[in-house]
Amino acid sequence: MIKTFHLKTVARDQMVEITSLIEEWIYEQQIEEGIVVVSSLHTTAGITINENADPDVKTDMLRRFDEVYPWDHPKDLHMEGNTAAHMKTSTVGHAQTLIILNGRLMLGTWQGVYFCEFDGPRNRKVVAKIVEA
Amino acid sequence: MIKTFHLKTVARDQMVEITSLIEEWIYEQQIEEGIVVVSSLHTTAGITINENADPDVKTDMLRRFDEVYPWDHPKDLHMEGNTAAHMKTSTVGHAQTLIILNGRLMLGTWQGVYFCEFDGPRNRKVVAKIVEA
Amino acid sequence: MIKTFHLKTVARDQMVEITSLIEEWIYEQQIEEGIVVVSSLHTTAGITINENADPDVKTDMLRRFDEVYPWDHPKDLHMEGNTAAHMKTSTVGHAQTLIILNGRLMLGTWQGVYFCEFDGPRNRKVVAKIVEA
Repeated sequence: MIKTFHLKTVARDQMVEITSLIEEWIYEQQIEEGIVVVSSLHTTAGITINENADPDVKTDMLRRFDEVYPWDHPKDLHMEGNTAAHMKTSTVGHAQTLIILNGRLMLGTWQGVYFCEFDGPRNRKVVAKIVEA
Repeated sequence: MIKTFHLKTVARDQMVEITSLIEEWIYEQQIEEGIVVVSSLHTTAGITINENADPDVKTDMLRRFDEVYPWDHPKDLHMEGNTAAHMKTSTVGHAQTLIILNGRLMLGTWQGVYFCEFDGPRNRKVVAKIVEA
Repeated sequence: MIKTFHLKTVARDQMVEITSLIEEWIYEQQIEEGIVVVSSLHTTAGITINENADPDVKTDMLRRFDEVYPWDHPKDLHMEGNTAAHMKTSTVGHAQTLIILNGRLMLGTWQGVYFCEFDGPRNRKVVAKIVEA
């Protein structure tokens, strides 16, 4: 089972929670147990698992990533000027693998699945693949 | 096959090796070949694979992560004050996927599996899920 | 199905594209759908998915990682002096999981699979494991 999800981001840096999107699809597939790989199809946007409660965490994280990997860098050669977005994507990862138990994602209380836009706004694709086991 | 492991960390930043914990469980399951997803259920603690020989590597790594993502940051909004731990968790990853061959983790000579505490000391949970294949 | 690939790197920091290496092997296995875990067996070299078009992205990324995790650090204790390589490996990850569809890696237009050497030049090993599903 593979599904492509289409997202539309609205800012250069944005963490979009997609937990319920993934969980609803798993529920539809009637999978009890297994794993699911959630993957961005882009090199300037990734996937991470992080806090789903206080929205300030997202604000802090995006600003901190921007400090470590500043958008403008005097030595960058890449013509598109978005090397920082490539750095952030390799840092959080293009994809994450999650465990499925009893038809749901096995996440901690505060864990949510986030699509991380680092060079938006853009139309983006996320692919999820379930392995039943 | 899914198992939850309970860990008790003793410092704010700590890398706890859990290689043998995971391997013993795989051995008990009598799995010959497949993969195992090892996941933290927290947003301020992750999993990484790194050096299992010289303990100085852990000391250096935790100090270096602390320099890149300092605990105190004048612009952080998150009330709990642990944004740095969220950054470190998304950087190393909440989970890692490992290959199983001949009933053991297929790791290089120097590779160990580490639970990375970034906001301890706390009682923590790690979940492992085997996919036989 | 597990396969070990042998690589020879030629610089201290180097991103070696291995997309076709992995895809050719998947093709030989006649796998239609599933996932593949691509793993470095080292603690100073990892795997990441990033831009396969403009080679300047690789140059920028390796230089930026070197700025965030400088090779020489006055506080490093690790005798081998390669703590920076350990940091970079945990940052990009020792392994990545990819989706297989219609016998090919399901990647975006600009996504390539890279072996990331952070302490070369060396002879290195990458292991790939397919889970058909």
